[in-house]
Amino acid sequence: MMVRYAGQALMTVVKTQDKMTESINLVQELLEKQKLVEGVVHHTDTPRHDLVEALVHRQHLAELHTKLNKLHTADLAHVIEILPTEDRMRVWQQVQRQHGGEILLEVSDSVLKHLVDSLSPEELDNTLKQLDGDDLAYIADLLPKEALQSRLETLSSNERQWLHESLHYDEDTVGYLMGSEMVTVRDDESLEQVARTLRSRTSLPGHTDKLFVINRRGLLVGILSLQNILLHEPDKHVHEVMASEIVEFLPEDDAGAAAKAFERYDLISAPVVNGRGKLIGRLTVDVVMDYLREQATDDVLGMAGVSAEEDLYSSSWESAKNRAQWMIINLFTAFIASRVIGLFSDTIAQLVALAALMPIVASIGGNTGNQTVALIIRALSLGQITSKNARHLVRREIGVSLIIGIGMGAMAGLFAFVLYHDPRLSAVIGIAMLLTIMLAAVVGLAVPILLEKAKRDPALGSSIILTATTDSMGFFIFLGLATLFLK
Amino acid sequence: MMVRYAGQALMTVVKTQDKMTESINLVQELLEKQKLVEGVVHHTDTPRHDLVEALVHRQHLAELHTKLNKLHTADLAHVIEILPTEDRMRVWQQVQRQHGGEILLEVSDSVLKHLVDSLSPEELDNTLKQLDGDDLAYIADLLPKEALQSRLETLSSNERQWLHESLHYDEDTVGYLMGSEMVTVRDDESLEQVARTLRSRTSLPGHTDKLFVINRRGLLVGILSLQNILLHEPDKHVHEVMASEIVEFLPEDDAGAAAKAFERYDLISAPVVNGRGKLIGRLTVDVVMDYLREQATDDVLGMAGVSAEEDLYSSSWESAKNRAQWMIINLFTAFIASRVIGLFSDTIAQLVALAALMPIVASIGGNTGNQTVALIIRALSLGQITSKNARHLVRREIGVSLIIGIGMGAMAGLFAFVLYHDPRLSAVIGIAMLLTIMLAAVVGLAVPILLEKAKRDPALGSSIILTATTDSMGFFIFLGLATLFLK
Repeated sequence: MMVRYAGQALMTVVKTQDKMTESINLVQELLEKQKLVEGVVHHTDTPRHDLVEALVHRQHLAELHTKLNKLHTADLAHVIEILPTEDRMRVWQQVQRQHGGEILLEVSDSVLKHLVDSLSPEELDNTLKQLDGDDLAYIADLLPKEALQSRLETLSSNERQWLHESLHYDEDTVGYLMGSEMVTVRDDESLEQVARTLRSRTSLPGHTDKLFVINRRGLLVGILSLQNILLHEPDKHVHEVMASEIVEFLPEDDAGAAAKAFERYDLISAPVVNGRGKLIGRLTVDVVMDYLREQATDDVLGMAGVSAEEDLYSSSWESAKNRAQWMIINLFTAFIASRVIGLFSDTIAQLVALAALMPIVASIGGNTGNQTVALIIRALSLGQITSKNARHLVRREIGVSLIIGIGMGAMAGLFAFVLYHDPRLSAVIGIAMLLTIMLAAVVGLAVPILLEKAKRDPALGSSIILTATTDSMGFFIFLGLATLFLK
Repeated sequence: MMVRYAGQALMTVVKTQDKMTESINLVQELLEKQKLVEGVVHHTDTPRHDLVEALVHRQHLAELHTKLNKLHTADLAHVIEILPTEDRMRVWQQVQRQHGGEILLEVSDSVLKHLVDSLSPEELDNTLKQLDGDDLAYIADLLPKEALQSRLETLSSNERQWLHESLHYDEDTVGYLMGSEMVTVRDDESLEQVARTLRSRTSLPGHTDKLFVINRRGLLVGILSLQNILLHEPDKHVHEVMASEIVEFLPEDDAGAAAKAFERYDLISAPVVNGRGKLIGRLTVDVVMDYLREQATDDVLGMAGVSAEEDLYSSSWESAKNRAQWMIINLFTAFIASRVIGLFSDTIAQLVALAALMPIVASIGGNTGNQTVALIIRALSLGQITSKNARHLVRREIGVSLIIGIGMGAMAGLFAFVLYHDPRLSAVIGIAMLLTIMLAAVVGLAVPILLEKAKRDPALGSSIILTATTDSMGFFIFLGLATLFLK
């Protein structure tokens, strides 16, 4: 199978050998620099020196093929994820036949769409056949309708029902993330019986650290860890050694809250039950980790107003569209700030120094406000903000901004005095700085908390909304004070 | 033990009943709103209705005590983490005797210091006695030297040696995160023997999904999953059923890379070996998840120039000190931007409209640059940037900024024309916008990548460095063009 496949790949590759060399270098660079497999991860059977030397002496394409075949599927997916579009497709064509299904599960959404688009209907069909119901449910919304439909027809009715039910759940719920594979035992079995049943299987589902114990009515009554099976005498009964304190989830539970429970209780797997206590699925730590990672990176992007769907190889045009939305909002708010300054053009005409000093106020205001936003976003994502301690937080941020405001205000005043020798101008910029910094703290607190209350992502565009406010208000405070006291 | 403890707590609490009510409300709110235990996590043995009703009818302090005692230690730690200082101490005093050690392991560094400071030397001693060598190593650098020393003397020589070795490793390495608890078996044992040995223990270390197989010389030769023990007949030998492809780490490996390996290969635990292949420790997924979480939240804070050590209840003064460093840098860069404007004060005096328009250029430049920064930080933290694809990325970002720059430049030009009816002014702002946005893309790419190359955290202050550059350069480009073409 492997050999036949290699032969076919050879034919495709010979034509594009130069481009291939580039891909090889890239894969090699990845392996060496990023310690993808041989660095951090030492496979005791394949010492890294052999591999590297083999690379130097053999032919390029044989190399690439060998190298790709030696990679763990998850590494293959990573290589595909970070390669530029052309190289990505070249590697993908070589590996999709054997590992296509698993790779689709590992790559990001935008790359998945790329890969799927490159396949002929037959190839896609073959790739999807490598996936079971659980896997299909996970990526179903990204697949072409017809391909999914034709794959659905070949599923068992159980799997089909599972897939249909999974698709009902919202992306941020436990139901969306759970899997159907799990091992259940009855509470009245002996450990001996359990052990015999297990030995009759060839494998257990991934991340099985515990079996789920159900009673005659199919309700979840406990959990039996593999450890407990091994640690107790075989003649004990399941109900004697099982744990009845269970961390369990409902399918409609929020995925973020479930992820926190996994972190907090150090879970590897946990049962999902319906409202009546009937076991319907299983949530595992690998899925939870992926979810957490996605959420965390989304925050960094969200603050700056970039959608998480953009990947490194989205075309310039797609990326521009992705970012344009927030940029247009930003342009609009910048126009408002500009009009605020316009209100005071007489004052500026009399004292041009104001034009040079006003961006200092706006810049410091924006950046202190961003510090507050960042702290609140972290606190929200760690579940640390409640209605009670919000008041405490407001008091504290105002205290912090008062201290920073006085310090920065004094320095700005001093700077202005050194340049313009006007004590009243110094006083105006100092006070404007203090007020703007305090305002920035309040806005920095309010923006993410209000977004969260409005059931929006608290990070989304928060940085842009904040600087819009601090710019306009900073100019207004500074130029307003200047008009009152300097004219 | 439990009852005696409750009696003592009662005495302390009666005096401060009003403050206590507040704490109870807070804890209750947490439980209800955040679904801390009873929401997401259903303990089948204690239906939530009972608990809530019990709360309504019983006395406050008995309530708090009952409630605290029902919480999982990790939840207790969370409650302590998010309570305002006074309440935090009150809850801590009630629970430190029983759960103090575990709580210290779960809370953030700054809270840990708070908690430790509140304890008398004897109390601290008792608390530290609840921790073993692994745990102590994890928090050793945060403990008072004398307390650590006196605890060290009561450790076994093995544990002491472990602790000493762990302290040598840098915080971002596998060695720092690894634990010493693990189960090893010899490759020539039968599964029956392994099972007997396991049954002679009362428990296995947390997150034991596999045993580590060593040969006569103590070298790691394979891994034996608990599943494999259960799935195979007892007369098989370990070397027949073990896996010899092992994902293993060296203690000096980078923790971030190891975390990526855990995500990618869906690991629960993995062996740590020294250069000679001898097994020296074990890394588990719970520690890795905590590490990932910390890194992710640090990015959000780092971009805004806030140190991760600041917590919600740091005093205003501490917080101000924490943020002042970047703010002073920011003030300095704002002064530079101000001097750039100062260079053009003659031009502004002739055409005050420039003062009103110039912040538009700077604001849009800063925000588009931040979008690039956010994308690059995500890509760096996902290990997606290599020297080869960096070039591709530069090309793409320049493409994106060209599209956005032309769009934004046109809109800004139109806006200026509507207000000031001066086609030359419109052209100047449009071109300045385009150039500033393109510059922002290049700086947004360069800042995190250069920070990373300089072995600094790529997120740290990147947003502040970026806006400093885009402000100064944005003003320079706009006012410079205006001076050339409008005077």
